[in-house]
Amino acid sequence: MALVVQKFGGTSVADIDKIKNVAAKAIREKKAGNEVVVVLSAMAGETDRLIALAHKAAESPNEREYDSLISTGEHVTVTLLAIVLNSMGYRAKSFLGFQVKILTDKAYKKARISLIDTDAIKKELKHGTIAVVAGFQGVDEDNNITTLGRGGSDTSAVALAAALNADQCDIYTDVDGVYTTDPNVCNKARRLDKISYDEMLEMAMTGAKVLQPRSVEMAKKYNVPVYVKSTFSDKGGTLVTKEDKDMEKEIISGITYDRDQAKITVVHVPDKPGVAASLFTPLSEHNISVDMIIQNVSAEGFTDLTFTVSKKEMKEAQKIVDATAKAVGAKKVEVDDDVAKVSIIGVGMVSHSGVAAKMFKTMANESINIMMISTSEIKISCIIKRKYTELAVTALHDAFGLEKKK
Amino acid sequence: MALVVQKFGGTSVADIDKIKNVAAKAIREKKAGNEVVVVLSAMAGETDRLIALAHKAAESPNEREYDSLISTGEHVTVTLLAIVLNSMGYRAKSFLGFQVKILTDKAYKKARISLIDTDAIKKELKHGTIAVVAGFQGVDEDNNITTLGRGGSDTSAVALAAALNADQCDIYTDVDGVYTTDPNVCNKARRLDKISYDEMLEMAMTGAKVLQPRSVEMAKKYNVPVYVKSTFSDKGGTLVTKEDKDMEKEIISGITYDRDQAKITVVHVPDKPGVAASLFTPLSEHNISVDMIIQNVSAEGFTDLTFTVSKKEMKEAQKIVDATAKAVGAKKVEVDDDVAKVSIIGVGMVSHSGVAAKMFKTMANESINIMMISTSEIKISCIIKRKYTELAVTALHDAFGLEKKK
Repeated sequence: MALVVQKFGGTSVADIDKIKNVAAKAIREKKAGNEVVVVLSAMAGETDRLIALAHKAAESPNEREYDSLISTGEHVTVTLLAIVLNSMGYRAKSFLGFQVKILTDKAYKKARISLIDTDAIKKELKHGTIAVVAGFQGVDEDNNITTLGRGGSDTSAVALAAALNADQCDIYTDVDGVYTTDPNVCNKARRLDKISYDEMLEMAMTGAKVLQPRSVEMAKKYNVPVYVKSTFSDKGGTLVTKEDKDMEKEIISGITYDRDQAKITVVHVPDKPGVAASLFTPLSEHNISVDMIIQNVSAEGFTDLTFTVSKKEMKEAQKIVDATAKAVGAKKVEVDDDVAKVSIIGVGMVSHSGVAAKMFKTMANESINIMMISTSEIKISCIIKRKYTELAVTALHDAFGLEKKK
Repeated sequence: MALVVQKFGGTSVADIDKIKNVAAKAIREKKAGNEVVVVLSAMAGETDRLIALAHKAAESPNEREYDSLISTGEHVTVTLLAIVLNSMGYRAKSFLGFQVKILTDKAYKKARISLIDTDAIKKELKHGTIAVVAGFQGVDEDNNITTLGRGGSDTSAVALAAALNADQCDIYTDVDGVYTTDPNVCNKARRLDKISYDEMLEMAMTGAKVLQPRSVEMAKKYNVPVYVKSTFSDKGGTLVTKEDKDMEKEIISGITYDRDQAKITVVHVPDKPGVAASLFTPLSEHNISVDMIIQNVSAEGFTDLTFTVSKKEMKEAQKIVDATAKAVGAKKVEVDDDVAKVSIIGVGMVSHSGVAAKMFKTMANESINIMMISTSEIKISCIIKRKYTELAVTALHDAFGLEKKK
């Protein structure tokens, strides 16, 4: 008997008929003799509806209330699935964050899970109950409802799988796995059978929407095997797991892009210790995530400092940076949200030279100017003009021969 | 400084603009120097939408899941009001049942409040926060979400007022008070300035929808002064309070009707000890409330036993009674849901004779046949054919001269 965690996204629970389809998938695992925990998102569109309602109530909704409000999306779907399962003759019980309980820190809108009490769920599993857990939500130590950020249900699922020591964590979604790149952008995109945690993490961080980055981090940390599968088809699927020899054969596993980027440059900053800290500390205090950071070499005691943030946080970031830039004696602040990030990812990169050169050459052949470059061991990202995104992705997919398995 | 509990029903929070109107009412009390607790229902129509969803998921939805699902209606409104209040510069915090916490028994769909922990709310009130509490919901000792039944938010408000030792409990609704009868049925209906707990209770029990009966019981028990007011107008209002001399002047305070009635007659039941118990115990075990019960005098060791239930529970009741009627040797079971109950209520009845006779004579003058009669100290109810409801109400209103204050 295995313990299986199944997570279904918003399109998989968009209406009662689809919820019945989810029930069938849970029952199949149950009938196979497994213990089953199902984690659900809100119905597709419901979270957006609730967010719109919050913003109709106030321009900047109070964050505690905002989180409590939008947590109702998952509250509705878990009870509906439990109703369906019970009516089909299966023991099922819904669990909200406070009922599990899933303890988080106090960072509303992007809370992190600190502890999961598994007693209540384990007790129900022992009785043969299918546990249906609300994704995306938790409670802090004072019983305030918190949410885990966009895609947080993935993290809920992986965290539950880790806490329950599950044998498998299946992430059901509307695509049938992880692709070499977005098939909507590049028709030669190929589904991967397997991908390493690190590659998946880089892909998720650089724009692949299939899994929330934090869920991959957590899967890696607790070594939870994650299957990305389609809710609507039994074919395909991608296993996210530990790196193995097979994976190294592929130099590049995937190409991602992210159009939700804005570039901020602080021009002519005095190059002295503590300047970067004084620029970035206020941003982090406002919970603004900075992505790429580049500082050019100093000329005559001054430097330019460029970084990227999420497009929707650009205005707030600019306001904060304007203030600190003045304080540290910089010349001016320039912003540009007409940009995108294109990245190539692969564990094979480590043992193959010339990958970066090939990337830059491919871009040059298409006359795409590279504005910023950032690298990690298994990833190279470039910031380019937004309109070249698809061209860059397609050209790189061809250049690295991703349409064929090595 | 007084502590005021304000409760707003579904039509008062039907959209964001109406919620802003509610915010204004809460702020007015706050500005007057009071501590303010607001209790909300779900947006008008939302609970029905959730119920429909539950019944689309299953014919007989699991009750635990059903309660958890429909509790989201109030969850949404309290967070929205808290968002509005915060954005207007007032400290406000929403409280769900488990956050308060409002402890109930385990009777899903009609749970009773057993205890309210007032610590969290009191702490917030001390900081000047407006506490916005979800009506209708609580949690049992195992943290399962329970609901208090239709109109349960009234009970939440009165129970909170009692637990917090509030100075006043204002029930805001879409009418401006309690009327001598339904103004939609009788255009001579008059608003009462004051009514006793007992009269209000009888009126609520016999069909007046303005307050949930349980909330009146609780108000009486803890002596909470309840004002029924209009959300949309500052005029009018009715105080529900302890009986006083003024009230006795009025022989009859109100006339109610209830079309949600079905009559079940068990014909030719052996008249021996224990028969009534064996008929009604299974009904109560199925949580079916029996309203009027009438047993005719025994003839030759047999009797007829008639009682009424809510129309929507008639089918289930009939099935149960059919089985037990057979078991106790009754001849047959007859049902009739083409009936209504018309009642006259007044504390003055106690000291005035001839009230019942006048009621029966009024009905007779209109050629309305009375099928069942039931009386309490301050109430007389008659079951009549459904189609005569309005005629009976209007005739009785005239006969007892209710359009004019005594």
